[in-house]
Amino acid sequence: MADVKLLGLWYSFFSHRVEWALKIKGVKYELIEEDLQNKSPLLLQSNPIHKKIPVLIHNGKSICESMVILEYIDETFEGPSILPKDPYDRALARFWAKFLDDKVGAVVSTFIRKGEEQEKGKEDACEMLKVLDNELKDKKFFVGDKFGFADIAANLVGYWLGIFQEASGVELVTSEKFPNFCYWRDEYINCSQVKEYLPPRNDELLAFFQGCARAHAATSASTQK
Amino acid sequence: MADVKLLGLWYSFFSHRVEWALKIKGVKYELIEEDLQNKSPLLLQSNPIHKKIPVLIHNGKSICESMVILEYIDETFEGPSILPKDPYDRALARFWAKFLDDKVGAVVSTFIRKGEEQEKGKEDACEMLKVLDNELKDKKFFVGDKFGFADIAANLVGYWLGIFQEASGVELVTSEKFPNFCYWRDEYINCSQVKEYLPPRNDELLAFFQGCARAHAATSASTQK
Repeated sequence: MADVKLLGLWYSFFSHRVEWALKIKGVKYELIEEDLQNKSPLLLQSNPIHKKIPVLIHNGKSICESMVILEYIDETFEGPSILPKDPYDRALARFWAKFLDDKVGAVVSTFIRKGEEQEKGKEDACEMLKVLDNELKDKKFFVGDKFGFADIAANLVGYWLGIFQEASGVELVTSEKFPNFCYWRDEYINCSQVKEYLPPRNDELLAFFQGCARAHAATSASTQK
Repeated sequence: MADVKLLGLWYSFFSHRVEWALKIKGVKYELIEEDLQNKSPLLLQSNPIHKKIPVLIHNGKSICESMVILEYIDETFEGPSILPKDPYDRALARFWAKFLDDKVGAVVSTFIRKGEEQEKGKEDACEMLKVLDNELKDKKFFVGDKFGFADIAANLVGYWLGIFQEASGVELVTSEKFPNFCYWRDEYINCSQVKEYLPPRNDELLAFFQGCARAHAATSASTQK
């Protein structure tokens, strides 16, 4: 049996991307939870450049960066494919995955920064949502009729963004502003694949990010000039 | 014969990445130079999300984002492979390509911004060079013994960075600070693949970026408070 370990975090959407891909393939894996305040020697040794999760360790070899790991999983393990078969559809899936990844910073700034940085984050995140609102009209999946690569990359906007919004009280997405996106998101959360893969501890996830939001607010208040 | 068009720019390293990949595969293509001040209807229609070059148009279908295009070229056309064959080596190549792509903003800030933004850019670019200096010690290529995916992504640091440095007068790379990187870079520029693919108009490229640097300096002086 393949020896598959995932250095990850239960609340990270990057980490869950990899878990979802492993579940699609039916690969058994051991999840090793990292403590980001006190990173393990295994993490530092497996990802010496970024020192970040997720890291997949397969038969002793480590692979870093969530979307790079997804390509590796798709090329290495049997089971349903994650990327489409057709090269043009594969390019579309990679295009949307990159589009979503490029906007992670904007989403994070929206919910945990303050002042100018937050405003810039909101502006960029709204631009992204406008594009997605247009793209996802009458679509269930990003490419074709199968949940795959870009849909996994979309877990930030499909699920975590709602949690961030609820936890922080910052309103970014409304069904008035982004009706198609909201319709897609409701379908996304309820589609069988996502439903099965979602973090089982939804309440705990919300409570965790509420704690983060409170801590950020306190830090921000105490350092405000 | 396949109908292959590239919407590109003679001075852009993103555009040259795609040209290099097409040359490796021996694919004949028509390069359509874009004017970024007056973007063509074809560009706006082919890349409606980003409205940026490069765009590959293959049999009427458009593919955007340079590294996504490289994957498409590798999967679509016969000829020498651009990514390695082994999934783990492919993951390494994608990891380094992403690493290099994530640092484009820092390099650009170093050479065209001023003040705080430039300082932050320099700091990030130096971090990148430190990593590369360590990684490229005694290495000719990023992965294995063949010029490929990550080496093409490295055209910014392998070639354009030197031009930016010369054009702007901003000193970022010295052989004292980054000896292994500089050794690799000299080999890179002189390796047969790169030598053949380099922009034929080296002097023109330098003159072009000197013009850009002068224009930025003038704008910056006139808007300085």
